Amino acid sequence: MKHKIDAIETPAFIVNTAIAHANINRFQRHCDTVGLRLRPHIKTHKLVDFAKAQMAAGAIGITCQKISEAEIMATGGLDDILITFNILGAAKLQRLRALQDRVTRLMVVADNEQVVAGLAATFAGAPKSLGILVECDTGARRCGVQTPKQALSLALSIAAAHGLTFAGLMVYPPVGGQAKTAEFMTETTQLLAAAGLACPMISSGGSPDMWTAATDDIITEYRIGTYIYNDRSLVARGVCTWDDCAAHVLATVVSAPTADRVVIDAGSKALTSDLMGFSDYGQIVGYPDARIVTLSEEHGVVSIASGAKITVGQRIQIVPNHVCVVSNMFDTIWMGTDGDFVQHRVDARGCVT
Amino acid sequence: MKHKIDAIETPAFIVNTAIAHANINRFQRHCDTVGLRLRPHIKTHKLVDFAKAQMAAGAIGITCQKISEAEIMATGGLDDILITFNILGAAKLQRLRALQDRVTRLMVVADNEQVVAGLAATFAGAPKSLGILVECDTGARRCGVQTPKQALSLALSIAAAHGLTFAGLMVYPPVGGQAKTAEFMTETTQLLAAAGLACPMISSGGSPDMWTAATDDIITEYRIGTYIYNDRSLVARGVCTWDDCAAHVLATVVSAPTADRVVIDAGSKALTSDLMGFSDYGQIVGYPDARIVTLSEEHGVVSIASGAKITVGQRIQIVPNHVCVVSNMFDTIWMGTDGDFVQHRVDARGCVT
Repeated sequence: MKHKIDAIETPAFIVNTAIAHANINRFQRHCDTVGLRLRPHIKTHKLVDFAKAQMAAGAIGITCQKISEAEIMATGGLDDILITFNILGAAKLQRLRALQDRVTRLMVVADNEQVVAGLAATFAGAPKSLGILVECDTGARRCGVQTPKQALSLALSIAAAHGLTFAGLMVYPPVGGQAKTAEFMTETTQLLAAAGLACPMISSGGSPDMWTAATDDIITEYRIGTYIYNDRSLVARGVCTWDDCAAHVLATVVSAPTADRVVIDAGSKALTSDLMGFSDYGQIVGYPDARIVTLSEEHGVVSIASGAKITVGQRIQIVPNHVCVVSNMFDTIWMGTDGDFVQHRVDARGCVT
Repeated sequence: MKHKIDAIETPAFIVNTAIAHANINRFQRHCDTVGLRLRPHIKTHKLVDFAKAQMAAGAIGITCQKISEAEIMATGGLDDILITFNILGAAKLQRLRALQDRVTRLMVVADNEQVVAGLAATFAGAPKSLGILVECDTGARRCGVQTPKQALSLALSIAAAHGLTFAGLMVYPPVGGQAKTAEFMTETTQLLAAAGLACPMISSGGSPDMWTAATDDIITEYRIGTYIYNDRSLVARGVCTWDDCAAHVLATVVSAPTADRVVIDAGSKALTSDLMGFSDYGQIVGYPDARIVTLSEEHGVVSIASGAKITVGQRIQIVPNHVCVVSNMFDTIWMGTDGDFVQHRVDARGCVT
């Protein structure tokens, strides 16, 4: 059933599907032009329909961060899935094994021998071998082997294991870290070649550097999530414009206690506390000087210019600082164009395991 | 089905029910001793069973922040509910009206005339009048009328409206703001008395000041949420001890890229970005010097002393900075004592409207 925006109860997460599809298509065309395979990360939207739209536009497959996300996507018909997370523990390994039977291609990553050992024990007798990418740390200081030599060593372990195939390298680079990433990857592929190991793919990712992703000429696949919706952090980085922001939190002004303060019905349980370098919690559309200065769980306190025309009962739209975590707060989102919105369940919300 | 903690997949939200019940009972006894009626806020646990346990221990009713939370609690059998939020808009007002028919007592708050007007229009023909508390701002700078005179004015509007009853005053005071709150409330009750209006209740709240809540001798009811689980922020304030913390995030170490860093499978989609004055994202039990320094959505980067014994595959427990938002991230929680845990749905998770 279609709803006009004024009929949507607040707070709500609303997505302009025309803008989202334009964002999907624009970056897919860019990747097609520069010869980069695109593997969108579904963590941002967590929706089967948008994953299918990304595939229809030309993506080679999808990226998930959790097995539970991948399970939902597989049920929805997605059949080429990379999980960019070290999988550990008997229960998760069994789920991964079962998932492999349901898709055409499943790949995961590993950055240490314990993870490789668990995967090898699980997939030793599987009918298909499991492709493993070696995760490399080129400066983001999260997961990843620290040196090309460590990458080689882990690749050799993978290649030697029954049931596993060395599928390439994976990196989540620091913003602006392309030169160092290219250097690391070049050195690693040379070591791999000298050891007789082909490196079928090198997967990098991240929305902040999306438009210059292919300039190092060594990355073959790109993983990216935020670009489908965009958010305030990407506008601030110059990656997109406000008009490219497809997702907003719709809120209602519920109180105006003083001339310079209003309170909205969206707090940290809607907007989250992610600052992303800002000192406030989102940008209110049409009110460039208003600042969401404090969040309680269900209240947002907005500092306004004295006498600004924001009144009790008024509905506002907020571009969140970081959209990927906001879409994970809502059980349902409202999708539409031209003012008509339909409510959808967020298929993979809360998929923590 | 009971699970040992080692069989629970991570990340997970686990609650020691013995500690939670001890927390419920300890503060209820305190309130009974000092003559304060307790109206626990269910926003922290969002569980019908714990709300019932709070009632069984002696609470006078419950507090909710959202109609959707109250609807779920009413379905679960809770029948004395205060919603401490300005309710605005046709859809919400109709839901509130329907909810009133389902419970013995329903009360809401208002801090402005628009809210009172909407409530009055909705409840004018209702068989029962709706009790309204006037929300006062005594320094927390969120919602609330700013002066006792404004409180009187709004109370008179409520009392004059068909279908509404002036039920008293409500405040969410700033931490340590009891003296100023008492002054505001005393002056307001004097104004109300002079105008011939009785003030049946004065409701205050907040976990940080819970043990001194009754010292001002004017508060009649207390609203409190966090105390059932407790968290790192309350330990830091001296309100409870680590042993009183009933809720933990269970996580697995998935990577140890360097000697001074490990990575866990709990990120901002499990722990949230709430800092609560800390510079890191939770306290790891048994590792007082380890610091969760950075969160991605699904990774937590932990800084450890070089050579500290935290290894890949190891499971850790984290006391969150702010437990109320963490319990809202998980569709299910694991509840248990003595190492046996049962999975429960978080009844009112994501109840944003």
